[in-house]
Amino acid sequence: MPSRLLRTAVKPIGAQLAERYRTVRAATMALAEQLAIEDQVVQPCAEASPTKWHLGHTTWFFERFVLADRVRGYEPVDGRYERIFNSYYHTIGSMHPRSERGLLSRPTVAQIHVYRSRIDERLLELLEARSEDTDLADLVELGLNHEEQHQELLLTDAKQVLFANPLLDVAYCSTAAPPRATATAPLRFQFEPAGFTEIGAESPGFAFDNERPRHREWLEAYSLANRLVTNAEYREFIRAGGYTTPELWLADGLTSVRNSGWDRPLCWSPDLEREYTLGGWRPLDPHAPVCHVSFYEAAAFAAWSEARLPTEAEWENAAQAATPIEGNLRETGWLHPAAATPDARRRVWQLWGDVWEWCASAYCPYPSFRPLRGSLGEYNGKFMCNQLVARGGSCVTPTRHIRPSYRNFFYPQDRWQFLGIRLAKDA
Amino acid sequence: MPSRLLRTAVKPIGAQLAERYRTVRAATMALAEQLAIEDQVVQPCAEASPTKWHLGHTTWFFERFVLADRVRGYEPVDGRYERIFNSYYHTIGSMHPRSERGLLSRPTVAQIHVYRSRIDERLLELLEARSEDTDLADLVELGLNHEEQHQELLLTDAKQVLFANPLLDVAYCSTAAPPRATATAPLRFQFEPAGFTEIGAESPGFAFDNERPRHREWLEAYSLANRLVTNAEYREFIRAGGYTTPELWLADGLTSVRNSGWDRPLCWSPDLEREYTLGGWRPLDPHAPVCHVSFYEAAAFAAWSEARLPTEAEWENAAQAATPIEGNLRETGWLHPAAATPDARRRVWQLWGDVWEWCASAYCPYPSFRPLRGSLGEYNGKFMCNQLVARGGSCVTPTRHIRPSYRNFFYPQDRWQFLGIRLAKDA
Amino acid sequence: MPSRLLRTAVKPIGAQLAERYRTVRAATMALAEQLAIEDQVVQPCAEASPTKWHLGHTTWFFERFVLADRVRGYEPVDGRYERIFNSYYHTIGSMHPRSERGLLSRPTVAQIHVYRSRIDERLLELLEARSEDTDLADLVELGLNHEEQHQELLLTDAKQVLFANPLLDVAYCSTAAPPRATATAPLRFQFEPAGFTEIGAESPGFAFDNERPRHREWLEAYSLANRLVTNAEYREFIRAGGYTTPELWLADGLTSVRNSGWDRPLCWSPDLEREYTLGGWRPLDPHAPVCHVSFYEAAAFAAWSEARLPTEAEWENAAQAATPIEGNLRETGWLHPAAATPDARRRVWQLWGDVWEWCASAYCPYPSFRPLRGSLGEYNGKFMCNQLVARGGSCVTPTRHIRPSYRNFFYPQDRWQFLGIRLAKDA
Amino acid sequence: MPSRLLRTAVKPIGAQLAERYRTVRAATMALAEQLAIEDQVVQPCAEASPTKWHLGHTTWFFERFVLADRVRGYEPVDGRYERIFNSYYHTIGSMHPRSERGLLSRPTVAQIHVYRSRIDERLLELLEARSEDTDLADLVELGLNHEEQHQELLLTDAKQVLFANPLLDVAYCSTAAPPRATATAPLRFQFEPAGFTEIGAESPGFAFDNERPRHREWLEAYSLANRLVTNAEYREFIRAGGYTTPELWLADGLTSVRNSGWDRPLCWSPDLEREYTLGGWRPLDPHAPVCHVSFYEAAAFAAWSEARLPTEAEWENAAQAATPIEGNLRETGWLHPAAATPDARRRVWQLWGDVWEWCASAYCPYPSFRPLRGSLGEYNGKFMCNQLVARGGSCVTPTRHIRPSYRNFFYPQDRWQFLGIRLAKDA
Repeated sequence: MPSRLLRTAVKPIGAQLAERYRTVRAATMALAEQLAIEDQVVQPCAEASPTKWHLGHTTWFFERFVLADRVRGYEPVDGRYERIFNSYYHTIGSMHPRSERGLLSRPTVAQIHVYRSRIDERLLELLEARSEDTDLADLVELGLNHEEQHQELLLTDAKQVLFANPLLDVAYCSTAAPPRATATAPLRFQFEPAGFTEIGAESPGFAFDNERPRHREWLEAYSLANRLVTNAEYREFIRAGGYTTPELWLADGLTSVRNSGWDRPLCWSPDLEREYTLGGWRPLDPHAPVCHVSFYEAAAFAAWSEARLPTEAEWENAAQAATPIEGNLRETGWLHPAAATPDARRRVWQLWGDVWEWCASAYCPYPSFRPLRGSLGEYNGKFMCNQLVARGGSCVTPTRHIRPSYRNFFYPQDRWQFLGIRLAKDA
Repeated sequence: MPSRLLRTAVKPIGAQLAERYRTVRAATMALAEQLAIEDQVVQPCAEASPTKWHLGHTTWFFERFVLADRVRGYEPVDGRYERIFNSYYHTIGSMHPRSERGLLSRPTVAQIHVYRSRIDERLLELLEARSEDTDLADLVELGLNHEEQHQELLLTDAKQVLFANPLLDVAYCSTAAPPRATATAPLRFQFEPAGFTEIGAESPGFAFDNERPRHREWLEAYSLANRLVTNAEYREFIRAGGYTTPELWLADGLTSVRNSGWDRPLCWSPDLEREYTLGGWRPLDPHAPVCHVSFYEAAAFAAWSEARLPTEAEWENAAQAATPIEGNLRETGWLHPAAATPDARRRVWQLWGDVWEWCASAYCPYPSFRPLRGSLGEYNGKFMCNQLVARGGSCVTPTRHIRPSYRNFFYPQDRWQFLGIRLAKDA
Repeated sequence: MPSRLLRTAVKPIGAQLAERYRTVRAATMALAEQLAIEDQVVQPCAEASPTKWHLGHTTWFFERFVLADRVRGYEPVDGRYERIFNSYYHTIGSMHPRSERGLLSRPTVAQIHVYRSRIDERLLELLEARSEDTDLADLVELGLNHEEQHQELLLTDAKQVLFANPLLDVAYCSTAAPPRATATAPLRFQFEPAGFTEIGAESPGFAFDNERPRHREWLEAYSLANRLVTNAEYREFIRAGGYTTPELWLADGLTSVRNSGWDRPLCWSPDLEREYTLGGWRPLDPHAPVCHVSFYEAAAFAAWSEARLPTEAEWENAAQAATPIEGNLRETGWLHPAAATPDARRRVWQLWGDVWEWCASAYCPYPSFRPLRGSLGEYNGKFMCNQLVARGGSCVTPTRHIRPSYRNFFYPQDRWQFLGIRLAKDA
Repeated sequence: MPSRLLRTAVKPIGAQLAERYRTVRAATMALAEQLAIEDQVVQPCAEASPTKWHLGHTTWFFERFVLADRVRGYEPVDGRYERIFNSYYHTIGSMHPRSERGLLSRPTVAQIHVYRSRIDERLLELLEARSEDTDLADLVELGLNHEEQHQELLLTDAKQVLFANPLLDVAYCSTAAPPRATATAPLRFQFEPAGFTEIGAESPGFAFDNERPRHREWLEAYSLANRLVTNAEYREFIRAGGYTTPELWLADGLTSVRNSGWDRPLCWSPDLEREYTLGGWRPLDPHAPVCHVSFYEAAAFAAWSEARLPTEAEWENAAQAATPIEGNLRETGWLHPAAATPDARRRVWQLWGDVWEWCASAYCPYPSFRPLRGSLGEYNGKFMCNQLVARGGSCVTPTRHIRPSYRNFFYPQDRWQFLGIRLAKDA
């Protein structure tokens, strides 16, 4: 039973959970509705998925992992959807290739809306009928966290759909934008002495399997930057020839730079003066955090700065002290990273929101890690190779979704996500 | 001036041409409107284009080659459309890559409809203002023939969009289907003695530049099959191991078979019992012509039949005697090839419509060929390498569009078109 | 029986053929022996093959098509050689991939020498034993012509092996070079009136199956350039921006130029002042014929010159009048194309030797073409798609090997061969 | 100065170092001389390099990093060699592409022998002249360790060259083979309690920069297998359907399996009964360690065994207790992994030699890692992304070359190396 692993202590059972279910599901629809139907079909790159696929996949997740397992004699809404909306669960069966999601015109957006409604109905019925079933509640909670992940991806991917249009004035939401900054906090490195730390998810409370078990780690002394790297700082790196200085780069990074022709962050204009945002093209804010850089670029920038990236344990150690969680998350509605406002009373900025922060840590299992049982075991564990950890959420992450132990993970060449840089140093 | 080259004798000038313009343009819209918006966005393979791109490109063709050249101080509806809707006119400027047309969500279908309306308005104004301008009339006639080509492509490509959906019951038009046959005409080879023939477009009358000049060709004696190869005949070739018998295949064909895993025509079910049509999945009609085969498959089938494919001169020589043009063209509404009904009075079937017929002839310039002047010179001539001629139109070709001298051309590996086989023999 | 098809009238039977066999086979060895062992292993591009593979393959050809078929109970020297040395005879069995011939270190050069000796011994025994067997003589003659083709390829391919070494002073033979010219014949176009011509191989006499049957063709009036295009002329085309002028190019040619970064013939230095030859790097001779250009470049150059390439029938029509065959063929020892020396008495230069001349003709079967029976039917016929004809032999072709009806064929993007340009015009 | 970083305490200065230099360099030549010249040219896959390239590259390493930096006015033996023999030092200049090393026929083996002799001469002169220069001694020691790495690679790569020949009886050395085993030690897991360990290279003594600094790591309790996984055990995994059971595989591993068609270790016969060795094809020894498996296969096997792979800290912790170093290293001459002989007195087998052991650890910098200064900083540090650590040396590693802190690193899909599996478990 997943309950042992998810270990949620105080369950939002029955009406409470149903209410949350309705809220989260409606939020997904609201995000999609700002897009034209055409925008919801296209897959701009292999990493991204069409909006309508996100709408269908999150629904299938509830159908397959909750209804099909918990409702006796359950008949799927449409048996052919499984092949289309199964993302990567090989133990369930074969699936439509990820890179070809943009080749499917059907089901249409309207058909997927119907699918969502029918599953919502069945799921709410089930919740009502089994309002004391904590295993069920755990599964639904997992499904809602999964849905929140896809809300974030929906926005991330839609940005690339719109950016791929050579017609320059397309915006997801023309009013989305952080206030333009006139200054930012001066860069400082906060010292942390050597010692044990504990990282990973505490029970009780929802967390993904990859955040567990909580365990001790030994940290050598280190220093962590008080804020993110800014556009101005990154532009200086570019202008200093950063992209053409081999000694700054990891070997595979240099290959990526040369093969892909990278010479600036994704979504920047060639003149380094403007950037594409969910609010459309905007002048680059020099004080705002740089965004849409690969791990390779983050590491090269760090080398150029005579610094390095933090490990995930170093990051989490600092983040545990930076609660409650506040920051430029989705709820600000800015949908773009914002500058750290100078404030003499603050010690550290931007740990939450703005951009996911690349860590120096390969995405690996924690000691004694156990994946969820059954097909849900494919959720996280099988990706623990070739990827790097990113932490802290971004400007399109729902606040409720992020926590100190949250581990996101990306390939080092990924740039389509809201990914940025915080520096660290050996003490 | 193109007039010299297009040499249309009796001009449908003024009101007459305007009427034809309205009819052709409305037909395109009517074809598109049977599709969901989602279907109009997707590009299923590099050869095919999204419906909405066809709608925009044909409009841009009138804007760029008629309005921009003929209206003093013409301001484009949207200057950014040129890069998107320019298909392959390098002398005009750079263009969005052909294989990435399905990555564009914008302009939306609705925006393209507005674009069409605005261009139609301007073009009809121009026709009214210059009702005696024969050069203009020639150009508009070229644009309308171009639009008819894209009507055909719209249907051809939409078939692949719908076929690419693993949901099996999607049809372009659920009532489209030829009557199911109970027999077909017996296969006979018609003898033609050696001698000179004349091929190519006669003046006056519209024709593309690649059909000119009309010229004599010497033909050795040959025989031409009286009808197309049927599904039953092709299925026999498959069952006899045709796809795994190397001696039947051209070298590059064998490579295609092996690399692509071909073992049957495109759109056939693996059990060789059903085929996908614009009317949805249907039982294979054994008497109907085989369709969606590459040149390599056509040539291998011919070798297996101890025959060969006709040259284009042989085909045109026969077709000149088979007028007026009647056949299973778009106007039947069947949108799928149909069997040749046995009829003792007929000598030859299916030269018009059903499927484009692969010829043994490489697509080359005729003696003394001259392309149109200016950018329109890129329309046909530059493709005269690596492609083969196909003749006779298909079940989605408008009747008015086809003629004996019409030269279509495809790469030998192309299968997405309605392409089929007529056999020939040395006499 | 192949004898009917090869139709050799006066047979070089018995001792005469044995003598020719020894001469041809020894010539191959002599060509290879100028290379280091290392040079004989490498495959510089998919089109080319390692020297040692040529040595083995030609030997296997005699073993498989003569000894194995004609000697009762024949046991192969090494049964595993068939998979390695079978070039493309699918009806015989599967083969080592062509593009991976450079991955084989074994058999070594010395082992292949032993293989050659043993087959030579067996073959000469057979010739002696069956000195009156004309079918055998035909087959051996085919094998010797095949060997001559590979002698030419050995030199062609070795040039690319050596050219691929960034060490600049490597030559196949440091003394190979034509005399440097001080002038060339002025370019003139020779008029030919319309009329029938006969092309193809006459019986008797050896010819490949693709040269048959001899047949009439109707030619419209045309003019043919009296000499090849020179380096100086081609350099002018480059300097005039030929490579970046889209209207000059075939569509697939423009794609090749852009994808491959072509901006000059293969083997030219970036400054257009030197070229790599089998005698090493040399200053470009402005009067010598341009060499190592693709069909696309030939066609673009012709367009820029307001001319075109000749068809193969036009070329052969002219070549029939230009006999006996004399020219810069392998026997000059220059191994590089040479300038046409001005000479008021000459009407046409360079039809034989120097470079293979790209024709406008797709490589197609002649009317009533029949390939050889059995596996030898794969020799030529299956390549009759996607390739273009080249005529006249090159500076590395043995004189005895070339004739007016000889059809060579290459893909339009091929440049590794000694390929050049002769212009033609509509009259 | 590198001396600070290499921290060699007792220097083998002057005559002693010269003697070691001669020995190591001669050993490389001896390894190469067992191969035909042809074998020394071929590059069987991108990971491997031709033998003659190894001979040249190691020589260039001494020329460029010792002679050029330490000899005033040094003139290179051949300035063009730098581009050919520079492996990956971008700060020195551009280089011939790694994947095209097999396209170079020149310099020939004989020319490279001359190059080696001339550099040896100059280097021995320098050592004699500066017999007290410890910085020089450090550099030469680095060069000799580098040469030892390439001795190992020479054998590893030569195995793939020979294996790529479809002629089955080619061996590097027909007498190379471990004694065939009749049994192996029973598998046991040795418990290690939680606690601090220290890993990394101790000063003094030679080590690569990536082994430094020595530092503490906290280990949770774990158990380590007493011996390597055997062929019999791995074959059982195959026969149990391991390769087609998705839940055992990392996501990227499953992709590799499917794209590459893996269904057994590299060098095994399809019937799982024989394997290719440097001594030629041999019956599979069920008791010998499995070899030539990727990280993905190692991880899948571990999952199937309900175990995991050890981290590099766990491995090094165990290896520190297993000294002095003894095992099936190159000096046995077997050149193939050998079974662990049952022996009641032994606690652990095969930590040294046989196969490199895949670790669960991503190849990352140690805390406070600093690469060597200058171009030698590219030696190790820039590869610290996307690769995994492997430990313990193999049957082709020189004994002198291996130590507990030695970190080798490979991409997870690599199989051409002698790579095998030792299991571990959470305690």
